[in-house]
Amino acid sequence: MSDTISAKAASARSRLRRLPQRGSHERETIYAILDAAFLAHVGFCVEGQPFVIPTLYGREEDLLYLHGSAASRMLDTLDAGAPACVNATLVDGLVLARSAFHHSINYRSVVAFGRARKLAEAERKAHALRVISEHLLAGRWADARPPSAQELKATSVLEFTIEEASAKMRSGPPVDDEEDYALPVWAGVLPLELRARTPEPDTRLAAGMAPPRYLLEFKK
Amino acid sequence: MSDTISAKAASARSRLRRLPQRGSHERETIYAILDAAFLAHVGFCVEGQPFVIPTLYGREEDLLYLHGSAASRMLDTLDAGAPACVNATLVDGLVLARSAFHHSINYRSVVAFGRARKLAEAERKAHALRVISEHLLAGRWADARPPSAQELKATSVLEFTIEEASAKMRSGPPVDDEEDYALPVWAGVLPLELRARTPEPDTRLAAGMAPPRYLLEFKK
Repeated sequence: MSDTISAKAASARSRLRRLPQRGSHERETIYAILDAAFLAHVGFCVEGQPFVIPTLYGREEDLLYLHGSAASRMLDTLDAGAPACVNATLVDGLVLARSAFHHSINYRSVVAFGRARKLAEAERKAHALRVISEHLLAGRWADARPPSAQELKATSVLEFTIEEASAKMRSGPPVDDEEDYALPVWAGVLPLELRARTPEPDTRLAAGMAPPRYLLEFKK
Repeated sequence: MSDTISAKAASARSRLRRLPQRGSHERETIYAILDAAFLAHVGFCVEGQPFVIPTLYGREEDLLYLHGSAASRMLDTLDAGAPACVNATLVDGLVLARSAFHHSINYRSVVAFGRARKLAEAERKAHALRVISEHLLAGRWADARPPSAQELKATSVLEFTIEEASAKMRSGPPVDDEEDYALPVWAGVLPLELRARTPEPDTRLAAGMAPPRYLLEFKK
């Protein structure tokens, strides 16, 4: 198996035009970023007009599962065969250089190109929803009441096949022009992370029911 | 002044097709979300192929400033007049219902449609870069060495005019089907927030230089 998502990975649309030293076509890197993030931004075009929709997702090999209401414009457009672009980005920190010009952010980002189709069979839909749920919060699916046949019918689930993908990232300290290092300006990195606060129990929850362990261990 | 971004706000492309009770065209709401977020996902189409690129931005009235290398494909495409879609989304929490079907997230999201043009004058570019910088980390611009004429030349700055926009959000506890409230399943919200960790000074920083206050007060 190639370590790139596809033999077409170096085609024009995913070719890393800028800063190729920050880029990667390695499958493992791409998977790791897709697995660490949980919010995707899905782009598609309708008669030349771009749309960008944020959505949750789950990954299984080269498939991304997306879901939404059966009436969603995005899902309909994609199911009709429109090319799609999915971006998942994690911001890891602000990079403060001595010069304004060399300020940057530390991040991990994947852009994936492909097409998506709606899943038809209830069983595959349920499977994909489980993958999305476990991706967001591992352990939750087993606790919640599973979707009924009617709920599955009201939910559209898309299977997006990654045809090409590339990763781009930055890490580490700022890089200043040599003559700027002497400036009396604080420089370094402000690390950022998504953190969970204390769980807020629903007011109708039975008294004394403790939050499950997977909530306290949430890390994305 | 209208409280919507544009008289065209209810046109087909930004019409809130799904869950209109969660939507808003109010200018104040749209501004507040754009000001709270700092990462935008910019979508554009090249011959029917969508691209979605994450980027920092700053806002001034109905303008969003985006920047990048002078060689960026995105900036060139947008400058050529291509319609663009900008999405900024903040995830505020995971919403855990008793049923898998009613799981959700709490979020604030803006989708904006418009076109962008490159700024030509060095002075306007410098102004826009300051807006972007102050949006991300207020107070920083005054500390850092300002961009030189050559650095400004190497930087493309786009002025994106919001022609239409809408906001969508969810907050509050899960809403379950009445018959599910009796299930012995923990339900509630896991609040999420982006947090800064301790600043990491650059190894070449002069000894004893303390991190500036605006770093310790970072909140996005």
